[in-house]
Amino acid sequence: MNFDELALELHKKYKGKITTTLRDSEELTRDTLSAYYTPGVAAVSKAIVDDPSTLKDYTWTNNLVAVISDGSSVLGLGNIGPKASMPVMEGKALLFKHFANIDSVPITLDVHSVDEIVTTIKAISSSFGAINLEDIGAPQCFEVEERLKAELDIPVFHDDQHGTAIVVLAGLINAMKVTGRELKNAKIVVSGVGAAGTAIIKLLNKYAQPRIFAVDSKGIISANRSDLNEHKKELLKYTNLSGIDGSLENILQGADIFIGVSRAGLLSAEMVKTMDKDPIIFALANPTPEIMPEEAKAAGAAIIATGRSDMPNQVNNALAFPGIFRGALDNNVKQITDEHKLAAANAIAILVENPSADEIIPSVMDERLVPSIAKIIV
Amino acid sequence: MNFDELALELHKKYKGKITTTLRDSEELTRDTLSAYYTPGVAAVSKAIVDDPSTLKDYTWTNNLVAVISDGSSVLGLGNIGPKASMPVMEGKALLFKHFANIDSVPITLDVHSVDEIVTTIKAISSSFGAINLEDIGAPQCFEVEERLKAELDIPVFHDDQHGTAIVVLAGLINAMKVTGRELKNAKIVVSGVGAAGTAIIKLLNKYAQPRIFAVDSKGIISANRSDLNEHKKELLKYTNLSGIDGSLENILQGADIFIGVSRAGLLSAEMVKTMDKDPIIFALANPTPEIMPEEAKAAGAAIIATGRSDMPNQVNNALAFPGIFRGALDNNVKQITDEHKLAAANAIAILVENPSADEIIPSVMDERLVPSIAKIIV
Repeated sequence: MNFDELALELHKKYKGKITTTLRDSEELTRDTLSAYYTPGVAAVSKAIVDDPSTLKDYTWTNNLVAVISDGSSVLGLGNIGPKASMPVMEGKALLFKHFANIDSVPITLDVHSVDEIVTTIKAISSSFGAINLEDIGAPQCFEVEERLKAELDIPVFHDDQHGTAIVVLAGLINAMKVTGRELKNAKIVVSGVGAAGTAIIKLLNKYAQPRIFAVDSKGIISANRSDLNEHKKELLKYTNLSGIDGSLENILQGADIFIGVSRAGLLSAEMVKTMDKDPIIFALANPTPEIMPEEAKAAGAAIIATGRSDMPNQVNNALAFPGIFRGALDNNVKQITDEHKLAAANAIAILVENPSADEIIPSVMDERLVPSIAKIIV
Repeated sequence: MNFDELALELHKKYKGKITTTLRDSEELTRDTLSAYYTPGVAAVSKAIVDDPSTLKDYTWTNNLVAVISDGSSVLGLGNIGPKASMPVMEGKALLFKHFANIDSVPITLDVHSVDEIVTTIKAISSSFGAINLEDIGAPQCFEVEERLKAELDIPVFHDDQHGTAIVVLAGLINAMKVTGRELKNAKIVVSGVGAAGTAIIKLLNKYAQPRIFAVDSKGIISANRSDLNEHKKELLKYTNLSGIDGSLENILQGADIFIGVSRAGLLSAEMVKTMDKDPIIFALANPTPEIMPEEAKAAGAAIIATGRSDMPNQVNNALAFPGIFRGALDNNVKQITDEHKLAAANAIAILVENPSADEIIPSVMDERLVPSIAKIIV
């Protein structure tokens, strides 16, 4: 199917994807208008002055997530700015509603420095119950999220980092079962150290401290390199503890797992053949994976996952974020912690009752996902 | 009716007033999800990169107004800050939907200087089709609106100023007919020079250049006073051209029209008796007017208007803003001009077919309002 044509057609037909409606479906009268607006609403404002925590009892913020992006790193499109990223953010708002019945407002920012992004989001944050950061480029995204988490009293979650990391871990938990491995003993190569790659490395380290090697376009991230920024230097806490230098090709030899969040076609069949027996390949570049599944299988891969909905084992953030935010809002959770992320990965993994090479990850349409995850976000 | 109790009850029952829903009411499938989000949505983003004006064809911004406040000057409550002002802004969003089928998002700001407010709103402005500023204190509100109007390419309208001014002018147009006066010959005293008072003065001046006197808590605004800020000095362009000093009591003698946007009980029956024969009293302080209607009538007032829904001649911004924004969005208008405001006042006034002392202003429930106003915002 040509999704481009269908997308243009549907977006034009409906002139967007979301709309606002009134919670009270009764016909409004002069009396209810006077209760919802002046003079009655003053009593509600006074109640919130007296106890600011009642904001969530009286306003839509209790079920409201802002999807916020500066449009600097949109999946497959790059730095397209605030206007052109609006359809993507509005699409995310649609997913929030569809999967978790969460109200969501897309906000696109026309500022791009860490300071400006943080300042802007802080200034508007009391309008929302939680904040989903989206498609903000690395390394800015790390500091933006850290500062907001420290300074705001509502949950802040950068989905490109943690949503992806949670689903990758869920898939790997089942891939370990299928191939008879243990994650703590695995050698893992992560290609790409942007938002997703970094979060995957940190979450895998938290889960089992496996041997991880991070690779960027210049090769293995190692302490001997002089070109590392602060963010990449920090990865040396979790990766390459043995201090190896070299290329992706070098480090893949004997690896159990390849996780690509980099670019199309990066991984060759020859490279797969040098990995450990029955290797596991997560080729998550979108829309074209680092290696196509059939090629990887022919080269010996036991399991392959991609980001695509038309292939088996789709690593899709929508498996995680609806339940994460549903739980945070319902359970009044102020911070999404590493423990929440690990528990969410387990909650997703166990929904696959009999994991197999073609089914290590549940379907995004699985209705057990949101309640299973939401209940562990406490 | 006790609107306080009903307000608390309804707000608690529904946990707020607005919610988001999907425009496409069909059950979403894997295919439509792939069109509304990845991979299809990329084609829509690319179309907007190629032609940013198509943002309004493909996203909900075409029908979306942000209701933005810093909570510094909430009607009847004062400076209650962003959280406590949220129910009021969400109420405004409800009115937008109810009266004009406009999607609206309440945004409360936790910053209060002119620079910070302008910077924040500019940073998020590409998320919306228009901006309704609400309950931002004077004099900050004037500079905030001016700067945003100059710097943004979407309509910006501070409703406390212009919505009120438009409805006051509409009411006065009919009050002139009822009492056989002409506005250009009237002596008008405006008590209160905050957002509403200032905009009323400017719009009346634009409409007919009547003799206007502005009064604040210290007396008549005059060039002889040494305590005037820049904003009040600017009012001398439109008021008190004869350079009179004195009190509200002094200047009311012989006046045709009193317009109060000040405080409860400010106007006494004795003062009304000193005005011209059959004076017109707009006592708009909320919730308690400058003088109660029965007292004003007993003192000789020919016509009295208030801000209250339980009294005749309610000056209610909801008569104006839904149609103004409906027109601006539908007709792709980038600036709400003085000409638009004058035309809107006329459009409201002529809906009252036979004006009388108790009916100079149409009902807010009049369904002709929005289309009548929207069609002149071109």
